[in-house]
Amino acid sequence: MPHAEIIAIGSELLTPFRSDTNSLWLTAELNALGIAVRRKTIVGDDELFLEETLRDALRNSPIVITTGGLGPTEDDITRKVVSRVTQRPLVLQAELLDRIRQQFASRGLVMSPNNERQALVPRDAAPLRNEYGTAPGLVIQEGDCLLIALPGPPREMRPMFTAQVRPKLETLAGSVRLRTRMLRVAGLGESQADSLIAPIYTRYANPTTTILFNNTEVELHFTATAPSDAEADALLDELVGQVEEALGANVFSHRGETLEQIIGLRLTVKGYTIATAESCTGGLVAKRLTDVPGSSQYFLEGVVAYANEAKTRLLGVPAELIAERGAVSAEVAEAMAAGIKARAGATIGIGVTGIAGPDGGTDEKPVGLVYVAVAGDFVTTHRKIILPGDRDRIRHLASQAALDLARRSFLL
Amino acid sequence: MPHAEIIAIGSELLTPFRSDTNSLWLTAELNALGIAVRRKTIVGDDELFLEETLRDALRNSPIVITTGGLGPTEDDITRKVVSRVTQRPLVLQAELLDRIRQQFASRGLVMSPNNERQALVPRDAAPLRNEYGTAPGLVIQEGDCLLIALPGPPREMRPMFTAQVRPKLETLAGSVRLRTRMLRVAGLGESQADSLIAPIYTRYANPTTTILFNNTEVELHFTATAPSDAEADALLDELVGQVEEALGANVFSHRGETLEQIIGLRLTVKGYTIATAESCTGGLVAKRLTDVPGSSQYFLEGVVAYANEAKTRLLGVPAELIAERGAVSAEVAEAMAAGIKARAGATIGIGVTGIAGPDGGTDEKPVGLVYVAVAGDFVTTHRKIILPGDRDRIRHLASQAALDLARRSFLL
Repeated sequence: MPHAEIIAIGSELLTPFRSDTNSLWLTAELNALGIAVRRKTIVGDDELFLEETLRDALRNSPIVITTGGLGPTEDDITRKVVSRVTQRPLVLQAELLDRIRQQFASRGLVMSPNNERQALVPRDAAPLRNEYGTAPGLVIQEGDCLLIALPGPPREMRPMFTAQVRPKLETLAGSVRLRTRMLRVAGLGESQADSLIAPIYTRYANPTTTILFNNTEVELHFTATAPSDAEADALLDELVGQVEEALGANVFSHRGETLEQIIGLRLTVKGYTIATAESCTGGLVAKRLTDVPGSSQYFLEGVVAYANEAKTRLLGVPAELIAERGAVSAEVAEAMAAGIKARAGATIGIGVTGIAGPDGGTDEKPVGLVYVAVAGDFVTTHRKIILPGDRDRIRHLASQAALDLARRSFLL
Repeated sequence: MPHAEIIAIGSELLTPFRSDTNSLWLTAELNALGIAVRRKTIVGDDELFLEETLRDALRNSPIVITTGGLGPTEDDITRKVVSRVTQRPLVLQAELLDRIRQQFASRGLVMSPNNERQALVPRDAAPLRNEYGTAPGLVIQEGDCLLIALPGPPREMRPMFTAQVRPKLETLAGSVRLRTRMLRVAGLGESQADSLIAPIYTRYANPTTTILFNNTEVELHFTATAPSDAEADALLDELVGQVEEALGANVFSHRGETLEQIIGLRLTVKGYTIATAESCTGGLVAKRLTDVPGSSQYFLEGVVAYANEAKTRLLGVPAELIAERGAVSAEVAEAMAAGIKARAGATIGIGVTGIAGPDGGTDEKPVGLVYVAVAGDFVTTHRKIILPGDRDRIRHLASQAALDLARRSFLL
């Protein structure tokens, strides 16, 4: 199986403020073709380091992909350095120049002269058309190595890869197919999930299994290689089927959907509606539910009631109950869920109350204490959880627990 | 000024699911010492590529920092490869071994034998204490190059760097100081901001200016180098002062604060309270306001009213107004803002209504059309905006516009 390396070019990627994210997308695409990524390098608009890095890459990897540095300014050094490293002089391609000039003209603009350099191509390199910008990409067969230079902006890079690079790599990748599958798990920690499924997945070298803890949930990634997609899928079916059985209802997603997407799908299928009443999550549960396109079909309304008086006025939580049990209590969480359900006329109501911190905790009710509750037509239920981490993490974990309780209680 | 490169080690960092984020934190720390990062490399648990990468780095950079691969398992190859590349045999340090054994004992655990390898140190290397885990770090002076190996988990890596590595680098960085400043700008696009300030910053080679468009706002980064912090700060004062003047109220943050933090500060200073009424942003405005610790002091309540009936019942928006003007209209946005202000008894009410898509747009009211409104005691005002991008981006930009309108109208 051939492997690749990726070089991201751009000084902004060496600041504390920006990550290279192109390589994540490219890695997923390459993996799907059975091509592993064995090294990623990030260099600035820095000829010395790019030259050094490119020479090393061509020596070590049969596929080298660069992103960035193809634009019209002095800072854009990729063409120049590729030309030097591959010892191919830059040649002006009249056809490319016409095309770039037309792209400017079609937007009613006059091309400034510095754009001409985008029509320079190393000798015997094939340019890649850029449908969404002016900088063309490059493909060069350099000995045993395929060097591919792509533009940095994702909206230009991605379609160029999909339409013009992937077909070339498919031929190259040849007979090994790589298929992946992902399960998402809620309500179990990483080590709990692992202890349930390690006896299963450790029996398989292919597919491989990776367990990631992704902010609020456990992700299980499975990767199989085989001579055909069908055979790789059969390997995945066998392993993933056993894992799904071991984890039962803790698995909420089998095709990469988020928890809020799954809830949206189940609400739609059942013809249910939902409404939310939040305290410590401050609108995050509503925000996640309404992240889903089309959620206006089932999401009726949400209330963020920080003040006790608002809990009473907006949700009908009795003031005496708050006085007696405290705003952070199982009883108030359930009353919030039942209150928003009744007032919105929704099938399901969600209530969340807790202490996200950093202040407001006591010995009896520490920071991280959260009650989530759900109310249906016949049953109202709650869960008490004590969450680790900072304010942001507590709020995220609380929103996840609330959505997961709704899923388990009414939407399986 | 010496420069550094960073090598992140770990196969999970070569998957589509994980980025190397340690290097962003390290870059900020190094930059503050006047050390630029000129290359970052990510390799897997892959001896061949790590060896190659490490050799190149030692040849090209006076400071090389690795993260990861120091743990107790077979996969953890950093010690072994460092030993090979620097031709220093690994020596078992009895003191380190005792310390690791004690760390296990203090948690009531017996150390498994594979942990012993964490006490192996290349000859003449100095170990770095790990206060938050068992894997020690390493410092090796290799010719002109300082090689520093740190553990991967941030909670172990960061304190180790701060307490034990930074003092060494301070000496090395010597006489050049580097200082940075950031301004955040709302209400202007990247090119609008640039056209206002390019005539200013292009006159300065030091400080350098970088303009980034960061999801919903423009960030301006300024970096000055000088023999002392005071001189670097003076250079920054001169340039940044002129930029602030040119941008006026469009600059909302001078010390890196988020828009919601700034609003929280201004609300607190003025003794104001705030409440939100949202449609298309679905709770995002409330979520952002309550992201701020202590926001319960000024955030009273929020309502997410998707259904028209909810806008009437929860916010008092007249049903006739919705029928006449449409739910997505300036009048309804203002009525939502005034309604939540009145019902919550807040100083300021925010209203947002719009079409986040992907469906629901018409020729007259396209996807991306959003009205944001704010209501105070004496004035209610709105802004009509047409936002680009997908649902997620439209919602983010709409929340930014709403918060920014509140800031400009009542919180300057």
